[in-house]
Amino acid sequence: MLYLIGLGLSYADDITVRGLNAVKKCKRVYLEAYTSILMAADKESLEEFYGREVILADRELVESGSDIILENAQEDDVAFLVVGDPFGATTHTDLIIRARELNIPIETIHNASVMNAVGACGLQLYNFGQTVSLVFFTENWRPDSFYNKILENRKIGLHTLVLLDIKVKEQSIENMARGRLIYEPPRYMSIETAAEQLLEIEEKRQEQCYTENTPAVAISRLGSPAQTIKAATLKELTQYESGEPLHSLIILGRQVHDLELDYLQAFCENIDQYKQFVREDQEFFKPPPYVPPEEDEFSD
Amino acid sequence: MLYLIGLGLSYADDITVRGLNAVKKCKRVYLEAYTSILMAADKESLEEFYGREVILADRELVESGSDIILENAQEDDVAFLVVGDPFGATTHTDLIIRARELNIPIETIHNASVMNAVGACGLQLYNFGQTVSLVFFTENWRPDSFYNKILENRKIGLHTLVLLDIKVKEQSIENMARGRLIYEPPRYMSIETAAEQLLEIEEKRQEQCYTENTPAVAISRLGSPAQTIKAATLKELTQYESGEPLHSLIILGRQVHDLELDYLQAFCENIDQYKQFVREDQEFFKPPPYVPPEEDEFSD
Repeated sequence: MLYLIGLGLSYADDITVRGLNAVKKCKRVYLEAYTSILMAADKESLEEFYGREVILADRELVESGSDIILENAQEDDVAFLVVGDPFGATTHTDLIIRARELNIPIETIHNASVMNAVGACGLQLYNFGQTVSLVFFTENWRPDSFYNKILENRKIGLHTLVLLDIKVKEQSIENMARGRLIYEPPRYMSIETAAEQLLEIEEKRQEQCYTENTPAVAISRLGSPAQTIKAATLKELTQYESGEPLHSLIILGRQVHDLELDYLQAFCENIDQYKQFVREDQEFFKPPPYVPPEEDEFSD
Repeated sequence: MLYLIGLGLSYADDITVRGLNAVKKCKRVYLEAYTSILMAADKESLEEFYGREVILADRELVESGSDIILENAQEDDVAFLVVGDPFGATTHTDLIIRARELNIPIETIHNASVMNAVGACGLQLYNFGQTVSLVFFTENWRPDSFYNKILENRKIGLHTLVLLDIKVKEQSIENMARGRLIYEPPRYMSIETAAEQLLEIEEKRQEQCYTENTPAVAISRLGSPAQTIKAATLKELTQYESGEPLHSLIILGRQVHDLELDYLQAFCENIDQYKQFVREDQEFFKPPPYVPPEEDEFSD
Protein backbone atom coordinates (compact mmCIF):
# COMPACT_ATOMS: atom_id res chain seq x y z
CA MET A 1 0.00 0.00 0.00
CA LEU A 2 1.18 3.52 -0.82
CA TYR A 3 -0.07 6.00 1.77
CA LEU A 4 -0.15 9.62 0.59
CA ILE A 5 -0.31 11.57 3.82
CA GLY A 6 -0.77 15.31 4.23
CA LEU A 7 1.14 16.86 7.13
CA GLY A 8 -0.80 20.10 7.39
CA LEU A 9 0.92 23.42 7.75
CA SER A 10 3.20 23.72 10.72
CA TYR A 11 3.60 21.46 13.73
CA ALA A 12 4.68 17.81 13.82
CA ASP A 13 1.33 17.05 15.49
CA ASP A 14 -0.66 18.68 12.69
CA ILE A 15 -0.71 15.20 11.14
CA THR A 16 -4.06 13.46 11.57
CA VAL A 17 -4.43 10.60 14.01
CA ARG A 18 -5.20 8.33 11.06
CA GLY A 19 -2.10 9.60 9.28
CA LEU A 20 0.09 9.01 12.31
CA ASN A 21 -1.17 5.45 12.70
CA ALA A 22 -0.40 4.79 9.04
CA VAL A 23 3.13 6.23 9.39
CA LYS A 24 3.80 4.00 12.37
CA LYS A 25 2.99 0.82 10.53
CA CYS A 26 4.82 1.64 7.29
CA LYS A 27 8.04 -0.06 6.34
CA ARG A 28 9.52 3.07 4.74
CA VAL A 29 8.54 6.71 5.29
CA TYR A 30 9.49 9.38 2.71
CA LEU A 31 9.16 13.11 3.32
CA GLU A 32 8.76 15.24 0.19
CA ALA A 33 11.17 18.05 0.93
CA TYR A 34 11.30 20.42 -2.02
CA THR A 35 7.91 22.05 -2.65
CA SER A 36 7.29 23.33 0.88
CA ILE A 37 8.43 23.14 4.50
CA LEU A 38 6.73 22.52 7.82
CA MET A 39 7.22 25.73 9.75
CA ALA A 40 7.55 24.29 13.25
CA ALA A 41 9.12 20.91 12.55
CA ASP A 42 12.01 19.33 10.64
CA LYS A 43 13.19 15.83 9.73
CA GLU A 44 14.65 15.26 13.19
CA SER A 45 11.62 16.39 15.17
CA LEU A 46 9.35 14.37 12.88
CA GLU A 47 11.49 11.28 13.44
CA GLU A 48 11.25 11.81 17.17
CA PHE A 49 7.49 12.36 16.99
CA TYR A 50 6.89 9.30 14.80
CA GLY A 51 9.45 7.18 16.62
CA ARG A 52 11.03 6.07 13.37
CA GLU A 53 13.32 6.96 10.49
CA VAL A 54 12.20 9.46 7.84
CA ILE A 55 13.84 9.53 4.41
CA LEU A 56 14.07 12.94 2.71
CA ALA A 57 12.79 12.76 -0.87
CA ASP A 58 14.22 15.52 -3.03
CA ARG A 59 13.10 16.40 -6.54
CA GLU A 60 15.51 13.97 -8.18
CA LEU A 61 14.24 11.04 -6.14
CA VAL A 62 10.53 11.81 -6.69
CA GLU A 63 10.84 12.62 -10.38
CA SER A 64 13.43 10.10 -11.49
CA GLY A 65 13.53 7.57 -8.69
CA SER A 66 9.86 6.85 -8.10
CA ASP A 67 10.47 3.14 -8.57
CA ILE A 68 12.82 3.25 -5.57
CA ILE A 69 10.07 4.84 -3.47
CA LEU A 70 7.51 2.32 -4.73
CA GLU A 71 9.77 -0.72 -4.44
CA ASN A 72 7.74 -3.72 -3.29
CA ALA A 73 4.84 -1.49 -2.19
CA GLN A 74 2.48 -4.15 -3.59
CA GLU A 75 3.22 -5.99 -0.33
CA ASP A 76 4.92 -3.49 1.99
CA ASP A 77 3.32 -0.33 3.34
CA VAL A 78 5.14 2.81 2.22
CA ALA A 79 4.29 6.36 3.35
CA PHE A 80 4.87 9.45 1.24
CA LEU A 81 4.49 12.55 3.40
CA VAL A 82 3.63 15.90 1.85
CA VAL A 83 3.45 19.27 3.62
CA GLY A 84 -0.14 20.55 3.38
CA ASP A 85 -2.36 18.18 1.40
CA PRO A 86 -0.96 15.54 -0.97
CA PHE A 87 -2.98 17.04 -3.84
CA GLY A 88 -2.03 20.65 -3.18
CA ALA A 89 0.14 20.59 -6.27
CA THR A 90 0.18 18.25 -9.24
CA THR A 91 3.80 17.50 -8.42
CA HIS A 92 2.90 14.05 -7.19
CA THR A 93 0.46 12.98 -9.86
CA ASP A 94 3.22 11.14 -11.71
CA LEU A 95 4.06 9.12 -8.62
CA ILE A 96 0.43 8.05 -8.25
CA ILE A 97 0.04 7.16 -11.92
CA ARG A 98 3.21 5.08 -11.66
CA ALA A 99 1.86 3.32 -8.54
CA ARG A 100 -1.34 2.48 -10.43
CA GLU A 101 0.71 0.99 -13.28
CA LEU A 102 2.50 -1.19 -10.76
CA ASN A 103 -0.84 -2.31 -9.24
CA ILE A 104 -0.01 -0.75 -5.90
CA PRO A 105 -3.08 0.11 -3.80
CA ILE A 106 -3.17 3.78 -2.78
CA GLU A 107 -4.74 5.45 0.22
CA THR A 108 -4.85 9.22 0.64
CA ILE A 109 -5.02 10.88 4.04
CA HIS A 110 -5.89 14.52 3.48
CA ASN A 111 -4.94 17.53 5.54
CA ALA A 112 -5.16 21.31 5.55
CA SER A 113 -3.19 23.23 2.92
CA VAL A 114 -2.77 26.89 2.10
CA MET A 115 -5.54 26.45 -0.49
CA ASN A 116 -8.22 26.11 2.18
CA ALA A 117 -6.55 27.44 5.35
CA VAL A 118 -6.33 30.97 3.87
CA GLY A 119 -9.96 31.18 4.93
CA ALA A 120 -8.44 32.08 8.33
CA CYS A 121 -8.24 35.71 7.18
CA GLY A 122 -12.04 35.81 7.02
CA LEU A 123 -12.38 36.16 3.26
CA GLN A 124 -14.96 33.78 1.85
CA LEU A 125 -13.26 30.88 0.06
CA TYR A 126 -16.17 30.69 -2.39
CA ASN A 127 -15.13 34.02 -3.89
CA PHE A 128 -11.58 33.10 -4.85
CA GLY A 129 -10.69 32.73 -8.49
CA GLN A 130 -7.71 30.91 -9.94
CA THR A 131 -4.55 30.79 -7.84
CA VAL A 132 -1.33 32.29 -9.19
CA SER A 133 2.34 31.80 -8.37
CA LEU A 134 4.88 34.57 -8.19
CA VAL A 135 8.52 33.63 -8.76
CA PHE A 136 11.63 35.56 -7.74
CA PHE A 137 12.53 38.00 -10.51
CA THR A 138 16.11 37.89 -11.72
CA GLU A 139 17.91 40.43 -13.84
CA ASN A 140 16.88 38.72 -17.05
CA TRP A 141 13.81 36.76 -16.09
CA ARG A 142 10.78 38.67 -14.89
CA PRO A 143 7.84 36.48 -15.91
CA ASP A 144 4.44 38.15 -15.67
CA SER A 145 1.96 35.49 -16.76
CA PHE A 146 0.28 35.84 -13.34
CA TYR A 147 -0.84 39.32 -14.38
CA ASN A 148 -3.42 38.13 -16.92
CA LYS A 149 -4.82 35.65 -14.46
CA ILE A 150 -5.25 38.23 -11.70
CA LEU A 151 -6.91 40.48 -14.28
CA GLU A 152 -9.31 37.70 -15.28
CA ASN A 153 -10.20 37.12 -11.63
CA ARG A 154 -10.66 40.80 -10.89
CA LYS A 155 -12.83 41.39 -13.96
CA ILE A 156 -15.37 39.04 -12.43
CA GLY A 157 -14.85 40.37 -8.92
CA LEU A 158 -12.91 37.46 -7.42
CA HIS A 159 -10.09 37.38 -4.89
CA THR A 160 -6.72 36.01 -6.00
CA LEU A 161 -4.46 33.90 -3.83
CA VAL A 162 -0.85 34.60 -4.77
CA LEU A 163 1.58 31.86 -3.76
CA LEU A 164 5.10 33.15 -3.20
CA ASP A 165 8.24 31.50 -4.50
CA ILE A 166 10.20 29.00 -2.45
CA LYS A 167 13.71 28.10 -3.53
CA VAL A 168 14.98 24.99 -1.81
CA LYS A 169 18.05 23.08 -2.92
CA GLU A 170 18.66 25.26 -5.96
CA GLN A 171 22.03 25.37 -7.69
CA SER A 172 23.64 28.54 -8.95
CA ILE A 173 24.02 28.64 -12.73
CA GLU A 174 27.79 28.45 -12.31
CA ASN A 175 27.64 25.41 -10.05
CA MET A 176 25.12 23.76 -12.34
CA ALA A 177 27.33 24.40 -15.39
CA ARG A 178 30.30 22.90 -13.64
CA GLY A 179 28.30 19.94 -12.38
CA ARG A 180 29.01 20.79 -8.75
CA LEU A 181 26.31 19.56 -6.37
CA ILE A 182 26.55 22.68 -4.23
CA TYR A 183 23.21 24.19 -3.28
CA GLU A 184 22.31 27.76 -2.50
CA PRO A 185 20.79 28.57 0.89
CA PRO A 186 16.97 28.29 0.82
CA ARG A 187 15.08 31.46 -0.08
CA TYR A 188 11.46 32.30 0.63
CA MET A 189 9.78 35.31 -0.94
CA SER A 190 8.66 37.98 1.52
CA ILE A 191 5.45 39.98 1.31
CA GLU A 192 7.50 43.13 0.61
CA THR A 193 9.20 41.58 -2.41
CA ALA A 194 5.91 40.19 -3.68
CA ALA A 195 4.17 43.56 -3.46
CA GLU A 196 7.09 45.27 -5.21
CA GLN A 197 7.13 42.72 -8.04
CA LEU A 198 3.38 43.01 -8.48
CA LEU A 199 3.53 46.81 -8.72
CA GLU A 200 6.51 46.64 -11.10
CA ILE A 201 4.46 44.57 -13.54
CA GLU A 202 1.45 46.90 -13.31
CA GLU A 203 3.86 49.76 -14.05
CA LYS A 204 5.13 47.87 -17.10
CA ARG A 205 1.85 46.49 -18.43
CA GLN A 206 -0.42 49.43 -17.58
CA GLU A 207 -3.58 47.42 -18.16
CA GLN A 208 -5.01 48.53 -14.85
CA CYS A 209 -5.17 45.13 -13.27
CA TYR A 210 -4.63 46.74 -9.87
CA THR A 211 -3.25 49.96 -8.43
CA GLU A 212 -0.96 50.94 -5.56
CA ASN A 213 -4.09 51.37 -3.46
CA THR A 214 -5.63 48.02 -4.26
CA PRO A 215 -6.47 46.33 -0.96
CA ALA A 216 -4.70 43.09 -0.14
CA VAL A 217 -4.23 40.70 2.74
CA ALA A 218 -0.83 39.34 3.72
CA ILE A 219 -0.77 36.02 5.55
CA SER A 220 2.48 35.05 7.20
CA ARG A 221 3.26 31.70 8.82
CA LEU A 222 -0.31 30.44 8.29
CA GLY A 223 -1.28 27.83 10.84
CA SER A 224 1.91 28.25 12.87
CA PRO A 225 2.29 29.63 16.41
CA ALA A 226 3.61 32.88 14.91
CA GLN A 227 0.83 33.41 12.34
CA THR A 228 0.16 37.03 11.44
CA ILE A 229 -2.37 38.55 9.07
CA LYS A 230 -2.13 42.07 7.71
CA ALA A 231 -4.77 43.92 5.71
CA ALA A 232 -3.22 46.80 3.75
CA THR A 233 -2.80 48.19 0.26
CA LEU A 234 -0.18 46.82 -2.12
CA LYS A 235 1.83 50.03 -1.73
CA GLU A 236 1.74 49.77 2.05
CA LEU A 237 2.82 46.13 1.86
CA THR A 238 6.05 47.11 0.04
CA GLN A 239 7.06 48.67 3.41
CA TYR A 240 5.74 45.81 5.58
CA GLU A 241 8.11 43.71 7.65
CA SER A 242 6.69 40.27 7.12
CA GLY A 243 9.38 38.37 9.02
CA GLU A 244 10.02 34.64 8.93
CA PRO A 245 8.51 32.55 6.09
CA LEU A 246 6.18 31.21 4.75
CA HIS A 247 4.05 33.97 3.27
CA SER A 248 1.02 34.24 0.99
CA LEU A 249 -0.77 37.23 -0.39
CA ILE A 250 -4.40 37.79 -1.35
CA ILE A 251 -5.45 40.51 -3.77
CA LEU A 252 -9.03 41.41 -3.01
CA GLY A 253 -11.73 41.21 -5.64
CA ARG A 254 -14.82 43.37 -5.91
CA GLN A 255 -16.99 40.77 -4.19
CA VAL A 256 -16.22 41.78 -0.61
CA HIS A 257 -18.98 41.59 1.96
CA ASP A 258 -19.30 43.80 5.04
CA LEU A 259 -18.92 40.79 7.28
CA GLU A 260 -15.58 40.00 5.64
CA LEU A 261 -14.38 43.57 6.19
CA ASP A 262 -15.55 43.46 9.80
CA TYR A 263 -13.49 40.35 10.24
CA LEU A 264 -10.41 41.98 8.67
CA GLN A 265 -10.67 44.85 11.15
CA ALA A 266 -8.55 42.94 13.67
CA PHE A 267 -5.71 42.80 11.13
CA CYS A 268 -5.84 46.39 9.92
CA GLU A 269 -4.26 49.56 11.27
CA ASN A 270 -6.92 51.87 9.90
CA ILE A 271 -10.02 49.97 8.91
CA ASP A 272 -11.93 53.07 7.77
CA GLN A 273 -9.18 53.98 5.33
CA TYR A 274 -8.97 50.35 4.18
CA LYS A 275 -12.73 50.27 3.59
CA GLN A 276 -12.38 53.49 1.63
CA PHE A 277 -9.71 51.85 -0.57
CA VAL A 278 -12.02 48.86 -1.02
CA ARG A 279 -14.82 51.15 -2.21
CA GLU A 280 -12.50 53.05 -4.57
CA ASP A 281 -11.16 49.79 -5.94
CA GLN A 282 -14.70 48.50 -6.45
CA GLU A 283 -15.62 51.72 -8.24
CA PHE A 284 -12.49 51.64 -10.40
CA PHE A 285 -12.87 48.01 -11.39
CA LYS A 286 -16.62 47.78 -11.66
CA PRO A 287 -17.94 46.45 -14.93
CA PRO A 288 -19.32 48.97 -17.38
CA PRO A 289 -22.98 49.80 -16.78
CA TYR A 290 -25.55 47.85 -18.72
CA VAL A 291 -26.69 49.73 -21.80
CA PRO A 292 -29.95 48.48 -23.29
CA PRO A 293 -29.69 47.80 -27.02
CA GLU A 294 -30.94 50.68 -29.12
CA GLU A 295 -34.37 50.23 -30.57
CA ASP A 296 -34.29 49.86 -34.27
CA GLU A 297 -36.42 52.74 -35.46
CA PHE A 298 -36.86 51.23 -38.86
CA SER A 299 -37.93 47.79 -37.83
CA ASP A 300 -40.81 46.36 -39.85
CA MET B 1 -9.43 29.84 25.04
CA LEU B 2 -11.78 29.05 22.17
CA TYR B 3 -10.40 26.26 20.02
CA LEU B 4 -11.79 26.11 16.49
CA ILE B 5 -10.97 22.60 15.36
CA GLY B 6 -11.47 21.10 11.93
CA LEU B 7 -12.47 17.44 11.89
CA GLY B 8 -11.58 16.66 8.30
CA LEU B 9 -13.91 14.75 6.06
CA SER B 10 -14.84 11.33 7.29
CA TYR B 11 -13.39 9.27 10.13
CA ALA B 12 -13.25 10.11 13.84
CA ASP B 13 -9.46 9.82 13.59
CA ASP B 14 -9.27 12.35 10.74
CA ILE B 15 -8.82 14.94 13.52
CA THR B 16 -5.21 16.08 13.86
CA VAL B 17 -3.13 14.94 16.82
CA ARG B 18 -2.96 18.58 17.94
CA GLY B 19 -6.73 18.89 17.60
CA LEU B 20 -7.31 15.73 19.63
CA ASN B 21 -5.03 16.94 22.42
CA ALA B 22 -6.94 20.22 22.53
CA VAL B 23 -10.31 18.43 22.69
CA LYS B 24 -9.11 16.30 25.58
CA LYS B 25 -8.20 19.27 27.75
CA CYS B 26 -11.31 21.36 27.02
CA LYS B 27 -14.03 21.85 29.59
CA ARG B 28 -16.81 21.82 27.00
CA VAL B 29 -16.80 20.38 23.47
CA TYR B 30 -19.37 21.53 20.89
CA LEU B 31 -19.90 19.82 17.54
CA GLU B 32 -21.36 22.02 14.80
CA ALA B 33 -24.02 19.73 13.37
CA TYR B 34 -25.93 21.54 10.66
CA THR B 35 -23.66 22.53 7.77
CA SER B 36 -22.12 19.11 7.14
CA ILE B 37 -21.66 15.60 8.51
CA LEU B 38 -18.72 13.32 9.13
CA MET B 39 -19.32 10.36 6.85
CA ALA B 40 -17.85 7.61 9.01
CA ALA B 41 -18.54 8.93 12.52
CA ASP B 42 -21.36 10.36 14.63
CA LYS B 43 -21.76 12.01 18.04
CA GLU B 44 -21.53 8.68 19.86
CA SER B 45 -18.43 7.39 18.09
CA LEU B 46 -16.73 10.77 18.54
CA GLU B 47 -17.53 10.70 22.26
CA GLU B 48 -16.03 7.25 22.49
CA PHE B 49 -12.96 8.29 20.51
CA TYR B 50 -12.39 11.47 22.55
CA GLY B 51 -13.33 9.81 25.83
CA ARG B 52 -15.67 12.65 26.74
CA GLU B 53 -19.05 14.26 26.20
CA VAL B 54 -19.79 16.12 22.95
CA ILE B 55 -22.59 18.71 22.80
CA LEU B 56 -24.41 19.02 19.45
CA ALA B 57 -24.62 22.66 18.33
CA ASP B 58 -27.50 23.26 15.97
CA ARG B 59 -28.12 26.42 13.98
CA GLU B 60 -30.17 28.03 16.76
CA LEU B 61 -27.43 27.56 19.32
CA VAL B 62 -24.62 28.85 17.10
CA GLU B 63 -26.54 31.80 15.69
CA SER B 64 -28.55 32.89 18.73
CA GLY B 65 -26.82 31.22 21.64
CA SER B 66 -23.16 31.97 20.99
CA ASP B 67 -22.80 33.46 24.46
CA ILE B 68 -23.74 30.08 25.90
CA ILE B 69 -20.98 28.44 23.85
CA LEU B 70 -18.50 31.15 24.86
CA GLU B 71 -19.49 31.26 28.53
CA ASN B 72 -16.42 31.82 30.70
CA ALA B 73 -14.09 30.93 27.80
CA GLN B 74 -11.79 33.73 28.96
CA GLU B 75 -10.66 31.21 31.59
CA ASP B 76 -11.98 27.81 30.51
CA ASP B 77 -10.95 25.99 27.36
CA VAL B 78 -13.87 25.43 24.99
CA ALA B 79 -13.70 23.46 21.73
CA PHE B 80 -15.91 24.14 18.72
CA LEU B 81 -15.62 21.28 16.26
CA VAL B 82 -16.42 21.78 12.58
CA VAL B 83 -16.53 19.11 9.87
CA GLY B 84 -13.84 19.92 7.29
CA ASP B 85 -11.99 23.13 8.12
CA PRO B 86 -13.38 25.75 10.53
CA PHE B 87 -13.14 28.40 7.78
CA GLY B 88 -14.76 26.31 5.06
CA ALA B 89 -17.83 28.50 5.30
CA THR B 90 -18.35 31.94 6.78
CA THR B 91 -21.01 30.42 9.02
CA HIS B 92 -18.76 30.73 12.03
CA THR B 93 -17.34 34.19 11.48
CA ASP B 94 -19.95 35.68 13.80
CA LEU B 95 -18.91 33.35 16.61
CA ILE B 96 -15.28 34.42 16.24
CA ILE B 97 -16.10 38.12 16.10
CA ARG B 98 -18.19 37.67 19.25
CA ALA B 99 -15.32 35.85 20.97
CA ARG B 100 -12.98 38.74 20.09
CA GLU B 101 -15.45 41.22 21.61
CA LEU B 102 -15.42 39.17 24.80
CA ASN B 103 -11.58 39.14 24.85
CA ILE B 104 -11.48 35.38 24.47
CA PRO B 105 -8.22 34.08 22.96
CA ILE B 106 -8.79 31.97 19.85
CA GLU B 107 -6.73 29.14 18.38
CA THR B 108 -7.55 27.55 15.05
CA ILE B 109 -6.56 23.99 14.22
CA HIS B 110 -7.04 23.51 10.50
CA ASN B 111 -7.95 20.37 8.60
CA ALA B 112 -8.82 19.16 5.13
CA SER B 113 -12.11 20.31 3.61
CA VAL B 114 -13.83 19.69 0.31
CA MET B 115 -12.29 22.96 -0.93
CA ASN B 116 -8.81 21.44 -1.07
CA ALA B 117 -9.43 17.67 -0.95
CA VAL B 118 -11.20 17.76 -4.35
CA GLY B 119 -7.68 17.76 -5.72
CA ALA B 120 -7.96 13.98 -5.21
CA CYS B 121 -9.60 13.72 -8.64
CA GLY B 122 -6.38 14.93 -10.22
CA LEU B 123 -7.63 18.28 -11.48
CA GLN B 124 -5.22 21.09 -10.65
CA LEU B 125 -6.57 23.18 -7.75
CA TYR B 126 -4.93 26.28 -9.24
CA ASN B 127 -7.37 26.21 -12.14
CA PHE B 128 -10.58 26.35 -10.16
CA GLY B 129 -12.67 29.50 -10.25
CA GLN B 130 -15.30 30.57 -7.77
CA THR B 131 -17.22 27.80 -6.00
CA VAL B 132 -20.99 27.59 -6.38
CA SER B 133 -23.75 25.97 -4.36
CA LEU B 134 -26.71 24.15 -5.82
CA VAL B 135 -29.86 23.94 -3.67
CA PHE B 136 -32.72 21.49 -4.00
CA PHE B 137 -35.29 22.88 -6.43
CA THR B 138 -38.87 23.00 -5.21
CA GLU B 139 -42.01 23.53 -7.23
CA ASN B 140 -41.86 27.29 -6.78
CA TRP B 141 -38.24 27.96 -6.01
CA ARG B 142 -35.64 27.10 -8.64
CA PRO B 143 -32.84 29.61 -8.02
CA ASP B 144 -30.23 29.81 -10.78
CA SER B 145 -27.71 32.39 -9.58
CA PHE B 146 -25.03 29.70 -9.83
CA TYR B 147 -25.44 29.76 -13.61
CA ASN B 148 -23.82 33.19 -14.07
CA LYS B 149 -20.93 32.20 -11.86
CA ILE B 150 -20.24 28.98 -13.76
CA LEU B 151 -20.42 31.01 -16.98
CA GLU B 152 -17.90 33.53 -15.61
CA ASN B 153 -15.55 30.70 -14.67
CA ARG B 154 -15.94 28.95 -17.99
CA LYS B 155 -15.37 32.11 -20.01
CA ILE B 156 -11.88 32.25 -18.56
CA GLY B 157 -11.36 28.51 -18.80
CA LEU B 158 -11.64 27.57 -15.12
CA HIS B 159 -13.12 24.52 -13.43
CA THR B 160 -16.12 25.02 -11.14
CA LEU B 161 -16.64 23.14 -7.91
CA VAL B 162 -20.37 22.70 -7.35
CA LEU B 163 -21.33 22.03 -3.72
CA LEU B 164 -24.56 20.09 -3.40
CA ASP B 165 -27.34 20.91 -0.99
CA ILE B 166 -27.56 19.36 2.46
CA LYS B 167 -30.81 19.64 4.38
CA VAL B 168 -30.38 18.76 8.03
CA LYS B 169 -32.97 19.50 10.69
CA GLU B 170 -35.32 21.32 8.32
CA GLN B 171 -38.98 21.83 9.16
CA SER B 172 -41.79 21.42 6.67
CA ILE B 173 -43.63 24.66 5.93
CA GLU B 174 -46.68 23.23 7.65
CA ASN B 175 -44.83 22.30 10.82
CA MET B 176 -43.04 25.64 10.82
CA ALA B 177 -46.36 27.51 10.47
CA ARG B 178 -47.86 25.56 13.33
CA GLY B 179 -44.75 26.03 15.47
CA ARG B 180 -44.19 22.30 15.76
CA LEU B 181 -40.55 21.38 16.32
CA ILE B 182 -40.79 18.33 14.07
CA TYR B 183 -37.92 17.97 11.62
CA GLU B 184 -37.85 16.34 8.21
CA PRO B 185 -35.43 13.46 7.64
CA PRO B 186 -32.04 14.74 6.40
CA ARG B 187 -31.62 15.01 2.62
CA TYR B 188 -28.42 15.12 0.63
CA MET B 189 -28.42 16.02 -3.04
CA SER B 190 -27.27 13.22 -5.35
CA ILE B 191 -25.10 13.65 -8.43
CA GLU B 192 -28.07 12.63 -10.61
CA THR B 193 -30.28 15.39 -9.21
CA ALA B 194 -27.48 17.94 -9.49
CA ALA B 195 -26.84 17.10 -13.14
CA GLU B 196 -30.57 17.27 -13.92
CA GLN B 197 -30.96 20.64 -12.23
CA LEU B 198 -27.92 22.01 -14.03
CA LEU B 199 -29.24 20.92 -17.42
CA GLU B 200 -32.72 22.25 -16.62
CA ILE B 201 -31.27 25.72 -16.06
CA GLU B 202 -29.22 25.59 -19.27
CA GLU B 203 -32.43 24.62 -21.08
CA LYS B 204 -34.19 27.61 -19.55
CA ARG B 205 -31.43 30.21 -19.86
CA GLN B 206 -29.95 29.12 -23.20
CA GLU B 207 -26.82 31.21 -22.73
CA GLN B 208 -24.59 28.28 -23.58
CA CYS B 209 -22.88 28.04 -20.24
CA TYR B 210 -22.51 24.30 -20.77
CA THR B 211 -24.08 21.54 -22.82
CA GLU B 212 -25.27 17.99 -22.21
CA ASN B 213 -21.84 16.85 -23.35
CA THR B 214 -19.82 19.13 -21.12
CA PRO B 215 -17.33 16.97 -19.22
CA ALA B 216 -17.65 16.81 -15.46
CA VAL B 217 -16.25 14.89 -12.53
CA ALA B 218 -18.47 13.50 -9.78
CA ILE B 219 -16.86 12.95 -6.40
CA SER B 220 -18.81 10.87 -3.91
CA ARG B 221 -17.91 10.35 -0.26
CA LEU B 222 -14.61 12.24 -0.62
CA GLY B 223 -12.03 11.12 1.90
CA SER B 224 -14.17 8.25 3.18
CA PRO B 225 -13.55 4.52 2.86
CA ALA B 226 -16.21 4.38 0.14
CA GLN B 227 -14.91 7.27 -1.97
CA THR B 228 -15.69 7.07 -5.68
CA ILE B 229 -14.84 9.40 -8.52
CA LYS B 230 -16.59 9.36 -11.89
CA ALA B 231 -15.55 11.30 -14.98
CA ALA B 232 -18.50 11.65 -17.38
CA THR B 233 -20.61 14.20 -19.21
CA LEU B 234 -23.45 16.04 -17.47
CA LYS B 235 -25.96 14.06 -19.50
CA GLU B 236 -24.34 10.76 -18.49
CA LEU B 237 -24.34 11.84 -14.85
CA THR B 238 -28.13 12.22 -14.85
CA GLN B 239 -28.15 8.41 -15.15
CA TYR B 240 -25.37 7.77 -12.65
CA GLU B 241 -26.04 5.94 -9.40
CA SER B 242 -24.02 7.98 -6.98
CA GLY B 243 -25.13 6.16 -3.82
CA GLU B 244 -24.64 7.30 -0.25
CA PRO B 245 -23.80 11.00 0.44
CA LEU B 246 -21.88 13.32 0.46
CA HIS B 247 -21.37 14.33 -3.17
CA SER B 248 -19.69 17.14 -5.06
CA LEU B 249 -19.51 17.88 -8.74
CA ILE B 250 -16.86 19.58 -10.85
CA ILE B 251 -17.65 21.13 -14.21
CA LEU B 252 -14.47 21.19 -16.24
CA GLY B 253 -13.06 24.38 -17.65
CA ARG B 254 -11.10 24.79 -20.84
CA GLN B 255 -7.77 24.72 -19.00
CA VAL B 256 -7.35 20.96 -18.83
CA HIS B 257 -3.90 19.50 -19.18
CA ASP B 258 -3.06 16.10 -20.62
CA LEU B 259 -1.65 14.98 -17.28
CA GLU B 260 -5.00 15.76 -15.63
CA LEU B 261 -6.85 13.73 -18.28
CA ASP B 262 -4.41 10.86 -17.86
CA TYR B 263 -5.15 10.92 -14.17
CA LEU B 264 -8.92 10.90 -14.79
CA GLN B 265 -8.56 7.79 -16.94
CA ALA B 266 -8.90 5.57 -13.86
CA PHE B 267 -12.34 7.09 -13.19
CA CYS B 268 -13.70 7.00 -16.70
CA GLU B 269 -15.49 4.29 -18.66
CA ASN B 270 -14.34 5.48 -22.04
CA ILE B 271 -11.46 7.89 -21.76
CA ASP B 272 -11.11 8.43 -25.51
CA GLN B 273 -14.72 9.52 -25.78
CA TYR B 274 -14.32 11.71 -22.70
CA LYS B 275 -11.23 13.34 -24.20
CA GLN B 276 -13.21 13.92 -27.38
CA PHE B 277 -15.93 15.69 -25.35
CA VAL B 278 -13.22 17.76 -23.65
CA ARG B 279 -11.89 18.85 -27.05
CA GLU B 280 -15.38 19.66 -28.36
CA ASP B 281 -16.15 21.59 -25.21
CA GLN B 282 -12.88 23.50 -25.53
CA GLU B 283 -13.70 24.29 -29.14
CA PHE B 284 -17.25 25.36 -28.34
CA PHE B 285 -16.28 27.59 -25.43
CA LYS B 286 -13.02 28.96 -26.75
CA PRO B 287 -12.74 32.72 -26.74
CA PRO B 288 -13.25 34.50 -30.06
CA PRO B 289 -10.06 34.70 -32.11
CA TYR B 290 -7.99 37.84 -31.80
CA VAL B 291 -8.75 40.30 -34.57
CA PRO B 292 -6.13 42.99 -35.06
CA PRO B 293 -7.60 46.49 -35.09
CA GLU B 294 -8.18 47.75 -38.61
CA GLU B 295 -5.61 50.14 -39.87
CA ASP B 296 -6.98 53.58 -40.25
CA GLU B 297 -6.42 54.21 -43.92
CA PHE B 298 -6.78 57.91 -43.46
CA SER B 299 -4.39 58.41 -40.63
CA ASP B 300 -1.94 61.15 -41.44
